[in-house]
Amino acid sequence: MEIMTQEQFAERQGRRQPSGGHQQLDEAVQAIIRQVQQDGDRALFDLTAQFDGVQLADLAVSRPEINAARENVTDAFMDALAEARDNITAFHEAQQEASWFLEQTNAKQLGQKVTPIEKVGLYIPGGTAAYPSTVLMNAIPARIAGVKQIIMTTPPGPDGRISDEVLAAADLAGVTAIYKLGGAQAIAALAYGTESIDRVSKITGPGNAYVARAKKWVYGDVAIDMIAGPSEICIVADDTAPPSFAAADLLSQAEHDTDAAAICITNSSSEAKAIQAEIEKQIDQLERKAIIDQAFDQHGAIVVVNRLDEAFDIVNDLAPEHLQLMLADAGAYVDRVQNAGAIFLGHYSPEPLGDYFAGPNHTLPTSGTAKFASPLGVYDFIKRTSIIEYSASALEQAADQIDRLARSEQLTAHANSVQIRKEANHAAKRSQS
Amino acid sequence: MEIMTQEQFAERQGRRQPSGGHQQLDEAVQAIIRQVQQDGDRALFDLTAQFDGVQLADLAVSRPEINAARENVTDAFMDALAEARDNITAFHEAQQEASWFLEQTNAKQLGQKVTPIEKVGLYIPGGTAAYPSTVLMNAIPARIAGVKQIIMTTPPGPDGRISDEVLAAADLAGVTAIYKLGGAQAIAALAYGTESIDRVSKITGPGNAYVARAKKWVYGDVAIDMIAGPSEICIVADDTAPPSFAAADLLSQAEHDTDAAAICITNSSSEAKAIQAEIEKQIDQLERKAIIDQAFDQHGAIVVVNRLDEAFDIVNDLAPEHLQLMLADAGAYVDRVQNAGAIFLGHYSPEPLGDYFAGPNHTLPTSGTAKFASPLGVYDFIKRTSIIEYSASALEQAADQIDRLARSEQLTAHANSVQIRKEANHAAKRSQS
Repeated sequence: MEIMTQEQFAERQGRRQPSGGHQQLDEAVQAIIRQVQQDGDRALFDLTAQFDGVQLADLAVSRPEINAARENVTDAFMDALAEARDNITAFHEAQQEASWFLEQTNAKQLGQKVTPIEKVGLYIPGGTAAYPSTVLMNAIPARIAGVKQIIMTTPPGPDGRISDEVLAAADLAGVTAIYKLGGAQAIAALAYGTESIDRVSKITGPGNAYVARAKKWVYGDVAIDMIAGPSEICIVADDTAPPSFAAADLLSQAEHDTDAAAICITNSSSEAKAIQAEIEKQIDQLERKAIIDQAFDQHGAIVVVNRLDEAFDIVNDLAPEHLQLMLADAGAYVDRVQNAGAIFLGHYSPEPLGDYFAGPNHTLPTSGTAKFASPLGVYDFIKRTSIIEYSASALEQAADQIDRLARSEQLTAHANSVQIRKEANHAAKRSQS
Repeated sequence: MEIMTQEQFAERQGRRQPSGGHQQLDEAVQAIIRQVQQDGDRALFDLTAQFDGVQLADLAVSRPEINAARENVTDAFMDALAEARDNITAFHEAQQEASWFLEQTNAKQLGQKVTPIEKVGLYIPGGTAAYPSTVLMNAIPARIAGVKQIIMTTPPGPDGRISDEVLAAADLAGVTAIYKLGGAQAIAALAYGTESIDRVSKITGPGNAYVARAKKWVYGDVAIDMIAGPSEICIVADDTAPPSFAAADLLSQAEHDTDAAAICITNSSSEAKAIQAEIEKQIDQLERKAIIDQAFDQHGAIVVVNRLDEAFDIVNDLAPEHLQLMLADAGAYVDRVQNAGAIFLGHYSPEPLGDYFAGPNHTLPTSGTAKFASPLGVYDFIKRTSIIEYSASALEQAADQIDRLARSEQLTAHANSVQIRKEANHAAKRSQS
């Protein structure tokens, strides 16, 4: 991991190319989407054979398969999962929104009605890896929002099976249907429906490049949570931060993926050196060393700044997915953070605490999108409807103002819809009673 | 306007083709985006000359131009605009979200911090038409959210000018910069920045097909509000609804655009005939008769159902942008509505009341997207950041559970980041103090 100045870091960031060059991938993804739209289930079986190497007899995971999974996992794992579920539930329940009315008089009533989305699709990556935590983080907010149908798809392994841990997590979290299906074909099936898979209104969950581009393509026809990029951590550390902790956290982020970014910013050059040395020491003991080495080379940095204030300028420009403030008085700096997915305060709040356990969602905006996006939450699974009610007299009072505004936009039928009520007020009152 | 049964209506809806076939448009839009990314301001001047027929000397609207606009508009118009602004402000202030903390103890702190998006772009259609109401509906929620830079673009007329009403509305609503720029080039400039236009994090506002497709293309690099389709109204009427009112409201929706949809559902066939007759009577007096005729032919219907309950099945499947409940006891049916952008209750709450004046936003989800999307609101201009803080002892208690979950996902460096703290707890406490 290289130590550099703020200027060197800015220079390297400036060399980065904007995203793009998805043309070949997009053509493949669009062809898959069209195939699913045209051929339905048959396309899903064919594409699963092609991409996952398995000829399935049935896309749906059966109740006996789920029961078997729950028996196959250890009690200790189920305990950990249940405690995580409780924490995630407690945090997300605080995100619930109620319908409200601003004015409620005989003359006027204005309000906002909150309704859950009826059907959502959760995409959970699979194949060789298994992410039960991702199941909890997607399904629990949907369930709290009141979503009736929570449909999960995840690619099967070459043996046609789904990981026991993922199935157990889905069952624990209240998923209502599970399909063995991955890639762009899963996104297309959820967006447009097939004989066996219901069309949903929103799709959430992470995935590979095919999944991410398919989500971009179906966006508009359905809602999506976000187009997730590689994972990132940014640590702001002063000389009170134990270097071994900071090093372990940078390493944990980088093991995800060679594109993952791990950046540490410190106002102490001795701290920088100590963290660098700790990384060298710890990396050799890790199973994913090769991935980490490559991620650090491409996207890792320890940036030394003169003052902590400068660190927060970098942070707000990066808008990191995960931000750890390993500072003596971390809480005092929260207000300096304009853009971040999640902030972890102090020396004992490492990112994996948030990934698995504390309760806030681990689906966070990546690649600088924390400038405009939020963690996945209950708010992603509801929608709002405005409610407007005026009495005859309240409308009459407003009629001339509405008329003026409508005419300024040359929308005379709009003006007429109000004027006809004003003029016919008495007659209308008779026909209303 | 044709009267039909529920079955006939369902059959016609079923014949509708899903959206698609944007290929030529997309190629043009992508070429414009690339041109703006490569050539910056120069591309903007060239494209404005090409599409708007005017060679501008300056993209920015100057303070003297804004002052002149405020003097050119009538006092009556400014009064109406100010009253609308006050109503819109009052409603949207009720949407404000505060940061919160779920637990705040020495051991644990979990919370959600709400931060405004720093820079947003508002696209306002222009050219031959002027939409001051759209300026208010986009700028006011942004200002209430706390957005610092509210950058508006709107295409100039062939004389290089922007409508006085639009400039006056922008000034009244707190827009911080205005540019004479329309089409896909405006979306590209807001998304990627040029020499004179700051890159923003989110773009909102309606536009023509170029604008809508450009928003889809830049989505992901920036946030957008929605991809707006043609406007829609659905009226559910019983025999207490004055037919002249219902007719006027259907006509007002259809004047927007030949693609606009105006649908009335009633449980009374005599009401259906009376509304049909009223439409014939009123339509000849309207300036936009030709547009309305075409919209009604393609997308209009008066649907007669046996029971009101069936009307709400149609409503929830349509998920209309605007829903008017012209029923004797309209309020009793609000709970039957699962999917709608805005609900207008009773005989004296016509859609133009919401378009211009009552306070709720007139930017509403179209084309069935009310199944998953909300009206534009203050929530569109903020984002949330999770906050997680555990003490050393709280983390130690959680460590083994986190370890189990991380190992189930084969992320051993994640497990290590927690274990290293558990093991080094005492040493760490010393270095922390």
